[in-house]
Amino acid sequence: MKKNLLLLAFLPLMLTAQYSTDSAFIKQISDEIMRNGKAYDLLRQLTKGIGGRLAGSAQYNQAVKWGEASLKALGADKVFLQACMMPNWNRGGVDKASVVLIGGKKSTRVLDVLALGNSEGTGGKPIVAEVLAVQNFAELEAKQAEVKGKIVYFNYKFNPTNINPGKSYGEAGQYRRTGASRAAKYGAVGIMIRSLTEATDNNPHTGTMVYNDSFPKIPALAVGGDDADYLWELGKKNSFSASISTHGFFTADVEGHSVIAELTGTEFPNEYITVGGHLDSWDVNEGAHDDGAGIVHTIEVMRALKALGYRPKRTLRFVLFANEENGFRGANKYAEEAQKNKEQHLFALESDAGGFTPRGFGITASVEQLRKIQSWIPLLKPYGTDNINAGGGGADIGPLNRVFGTALAGLMPDGQRYFDLHHARSDVFENVNKRELLLGAVNMAALIYLVDKHGL
Amino acid sequence: MKKNLLLLAFLPLMLTAQYSTDSAFIKQISDEIMRNGKAYDLLRQLTKGIGGRLAGSAQYNQAVKWGEASLKALGADKVFLQACMMPNWNRGGVDKASVVLIGGKKSTRVLDVLALGNSEGTGGKPIVAEVLAVQNFAELEAKQAEVKGKIVYFNYKFNPTNINPGKSYGEAGQYRRTGASRAAKYGAVGIMIRSLTEATDNNPHTGTMVYNDSFPKIPALAVGGDDADYLWELGKKNSFSASISTHGFFTADVEGHSVIAELTGTEFPNEYITVGGHLDSWDVNEGAHDDGAGIVHTIEVMRALKALGYRPKRTLRFVLFANEENGFRGANKYAEEAQKNKEQHLFALESDAGGFTPRGFGITASVEQLRKIQSWIPLLKPYGTDNINAGGGGADIGPLNRVFGTALAGLMPDGQRYFDLHHARSDVFENVNKRELLLGAVNMAALIYLVDKHGL
Repeated sequence: MKKNLLLLAFLPLMLTAQYSTDSAFIKQISDEIMRNGKAYDLLRQLTKGIGGRLAGSAQYNQAVKWGEASLKALGADKVFLQACMMPNWNRGGVDKASVVLIGGKKSTRVLDVLALGNSEGTGGKPIVAEVLAVQNFAELEAKQAEVKGKIVYFNYKFNPTNINPGKSYGEAGQYRRTGASRAAKYGAVGIMIRSLTEATDNNPHTGTMVYNDSFPKIPALAVGGDDADYLWELGKKNSFSASISTHGFFTADVEGHSVIAELTGTEFPNEYITVGGHLDSWDVNEGAHDDGAGIVHTIEVMRALKALGYRPKRTLRFVLFANEENGFRGANKYAEEAQKNKEQHLFALESDAGGFTPRGFGITASVEQLRKIQSWIPLLKPYGTDNINAGGGGADIGPLNRVFGTALAGLMPDGQRYFDLHHARSDVFENVNKRELLLGAVNMAALIYLVDKHGL
Repeated sequence: MKKNLLLLAFLPLMLTAQYSTDSAFIKQISDEIMRNGKAYDLLRQLTKGIGGRLAGSAQYNQAVKWGEASLKALGADKVFLQACMMPNWNRGGVDKASVVLIGGKKSTRVLDVLALGNSEGTGGKPIVAEVLAVQNFAELEAKQAEVKGKIVYFNYKFNPTNINPGKSYGEAGQYRRTGASRAAKYGAVGIMIRSLTEATDNNPHTGTMVYNDSFPKIPALAVGGDDADYLWELGKKNSFSASISTHGFFTADVEGHSVIAELTGTEFPNEYITVGGHLDSWDVNEGAHDDGAGIVHTIEVMRALKALGYRPKRTLRFVLFANEENGFRGANKYAEEAQKNKEQHLFALESDAGGFTPRGFGITASVEQLRKIQSWIPLLKPYGTDNINAGGGGADIGPLNRVFGTALAGLMPDGQRYFDLHHARSDVFENVNKRELLLGAVNMAALIYLVDKHGL
């Protein structure tokens, strides 16, 4: 009775010789990674050695060289770079904000802020204006007559009752992405948002925003949790003004690269299975969980399969995608080239949800494919995969599904801490745990092995 | 297809009216805890306000008062203290060790060490002796002729291929518990052990050891991972000597207390369901995960059920157990008193595995009881309980099973980080995540509700 009662449903499968073979090889994968895994050391190199690596930055190009060298050194059959044009947004300086007037009286309360990615700066000098604090878009619409000339503060909070914080992030994300233009429509001169997090610290979280070209491109920044609470309480009792100063700007697109490695297929070399994460990160942190974890997962899967002498039936591609954070240019290019080269893309797996303990995979595929993948749960469960659910994949592999109908999977690590760190200064190496990180690679490598071996 | 395919097995159950009622109430429990939970604030009070609280210390007594006051303030029907005698071990000073001679040459390499709990000190001055480094007991036995007059260093490592680090802890634990006497048997004058951890830092980890009275009570201490690697590499190439200085001593047993709260049963008041954790911790840290988390889980379950106006059928007992770490005296007393008072103890649930994201429960019960509890998986799965397996409970509730045959459950949080912090200075409030902590209480409260409602 040591095993979960539910596994009884899989008993017939579990008694086959194939099951034993697969189970034994997956144990070899796990032992190889847990004993000799390089993911943690690689992550230290990427985060501490290179650091933040936004598309267009010198660090991004360093990361490309590092990725290429690492994949070669660890035994890929082939490594090449794939060029794409990337946006080149620069923060341009230190973002600042402070509350300067409360109910007519001077204040100097400094807020800890970060400009949102892609946002325009305040033009070389601070913008000082009264703040209109609103809970959500409905309140903005109701108060549209009061918006003109003001800085709008959006206090939209994560819903703490969502057990999956990704759901809360999805709900709150529109304030970061579209809040500026929705406020600019009514004459706002800037916006501040509560960061997309439930973290108990005061770190602001950056991330992509997009302007609607119909309205003025006003500055946009995020405040951390403590400052958000402060602003909201202040706005309930007082009128107040803030000074904000940001410096964001775009220069012309620049060429960048995704890094691609292969273990060449022995039976179906033109049939591809892709494993990937994104090599870029925001500029303000080390991008350790987002998505340093996915990058070293990807390299580790390659390393372990190679170290075990595994010769894949299909060609396994290990892709360090360019420019996920503010452009998806690497992802789009990869699918375009695949189409041009008439490649067949059977399956793609992304790790872009952090380096925490794996709990399973989210799948975008046909019902039959999903059922087949779910039939492998007993093989993966000893390593942490309790759930294989419909829905999931990743931003970098999404285009493959749209172009080829490729079946997608996204690693689902435990998600409770992810948005505490995501796009904040605190997303650093020290917040990644070695065993948790390695276990992610174990489950990914096992799934890749099963898809390669048994098809979909 | 959003749900796990496996849940189809439970479909008949899930279509019943009882399932809907239970599901709705558990959602209320979850919302109440995730929205209004006090566990995180309570943990801050216990860890930052009181700190380390070893049995016999002034802090332990403070913690008793705090626990009593908290349970009263949060609405328990009844709160009382249960006295027991507790051992009173004192660290007695700052533990020190250094390598003083390498291959005949002087050295001053300082090691970061902690004396093992219950160990005797070096008698007011350092012990200086040659070190015999061994991997395990087999090597100690093989080299028994070389042991006399030396300090034995045990380098037994966690097996990194165990996916459950608790298994590795179980395997390595004998070196901490019995290593001193096994070395003293052959004339060793002290021991050092590699700490029971795979942590990537250098924190030493204390924890209980026990002397075999047949042999001299020699000093015993633990070194962290970096120092352990250093000692092992050093021992391969050189003979070396170390100086160790510890100060541990026992004074006479002292009276201490467990704190017990009740929500009184409306139908079967003499039938008890116990929820608990242990109030004591080691002296060198804040005991945040071990077992501050279990304490605030216990209080939170009470608070939430009370806040929701839940009137239990059976009497629910919330117990902050005394002296788990080095004596189990609170646990033994609780079972003794229960027997004396002819109480019926149906079920007991302990949280003593940290405040990380819950993944399920381990159960010690009859096969029928286990099956019944497993039939509730679909109700608990939305909150993280993927696994309910045979085997588990907790040190504080164990005596209830031995005395009454009470069915036991232990909360199983994700365990990958637990032994990084366990009994080390790093087990502090900052390493507990609010949402992870609250989710543990959600799953515990839901299970208690189901057992109370449906019996076992």
